[in-house]
Amino acid sequence: MKTQYYTATSIDGWIADRDNSLDWLFQFGEIESMKGDYPRFIEQVGAVAMGPTTYEWLIEHEQLIAHPERWPYQIPTWVFSRRRQPAVAGADIRFVQGDVASVHAAMVKVAGGQNVWLVGGGDLVGQFHAHGLLDEIILSVAPVMLGSGAPLLPHRIVTPPLKLVDVQRHGDVFVILTYEVQHAGSY
Amino acid sequence: MKTQYYTATSIDGWIADRDNSLDWLFQFGEIESMKGDYPRFIEQVGAVAMGPTTYEWLIEHEQLIAHPERWPYQIPTWVFSRRRQPAVAGADIRFVQGDVASVHAAMVKVAGGQNVWLVGGGDLVGQFHAHGLLDEIILSVAPVMLGSGAPLLPHRIVTPPLKLVDVQRHGDVFVILTYEVQHAGSY
Repeated sequence: MKTQYYTATSIDGWIADRDNSLDWLFQFGEIESMKGDYPRFIEQVGAVAMGPTTYEWLIEHEQLIAHPERWPYQIPTWVFSRRRQPAVAGADIRFVQGDVASVHAAMVKVAGGQNVWLVGGGDLVGQFHAHGLLDEIILSVAPVMLGSGAPLLPHRIVTPPLKLVDVQRHGDVFVILTYEVQHAGSY
Repeated sequence: MKTQYYTATSIDGWIADRDNSLDWLFQFGEIESMKGDYPRFIEQVGAVAMGPTTYEWLIEHEQLIAHPERWPYQIPTWVFSRRRQPAVAGADIRFVQGDVASVHAAMVKVAGGQNVWLVGGGDLVGQFHAHGLLDEIILSVAPVMLGSGAPLLPHRIVTPPLKLVDVQRHGDVFVILTYEVQHAGSY
């Protein structure tokens, strides 16, 4: 069981542009952008977590209030938010706030041996990392520079460094980089 | 002949940390950090360009005023700077300012069919890109996150996107990503 941050990013480390848009990513095709390791990745996930901005983006982008059947996950999902959020009919969404450690423990229990997926954003993932609860970072790097936007992981991880454990190239567009977080004991 | 931006970067797109330090990179060994494609890369370079911050970093880090023999390039080097800069005894350094296009034309002439290397920083490279004078970006991605610092390329390059032309993995530390800039005509 691993806690993984799997996300698409620009080369320069932004997960959304300054208008909170993913158009730079979807120019390659929404499904195309998710190909590669995603199907193999998602079938091993037993719990999903995301921050408020990611959730609000999904609600708006997929028009989930009018079309709750478009909710993309059949897996229990935790949404961290201090703001009140709309629910999506029929979706297993648990709204939480505060300490990530106790929520993580609950997620691990529900995941039942499967992995925990942190969808984003970077602030939430930084909190998991700060608590020693992040094991792996999987980046689908799109061939664009954004210059500004929502940061991938606004957090310093230098000592110990990450460990590059896998590199997959998809044609002349994406490269998928997998890094393992080295915990103090494993360095 | 190509104009190339070859640099080391953190995963999240910073080429120096907020203290203008490269300690995060040199933890892997100064020579180690430069291995891989660097020897093959540099032998094809006929002219080098850098911005003021990069030059000042070299002067200080290598103590070049006291030790001019440590100047790392035998290739003619253009330093873009509006500030007055100290020279390095015996080094072929040409101090310039203003329009990158005319300087680039002079560099290409001196390079005599060899490549032009833009060492950095990101602002200078952004100016070359804005003038359609950047052909290739080669990134040696170190397995760290910095969260802030000097940006890789503070510039939006989305349409056309870059084209991933090469991926080289070096053990569990570096991955070298090579991207081709697609000019309007080649897209």
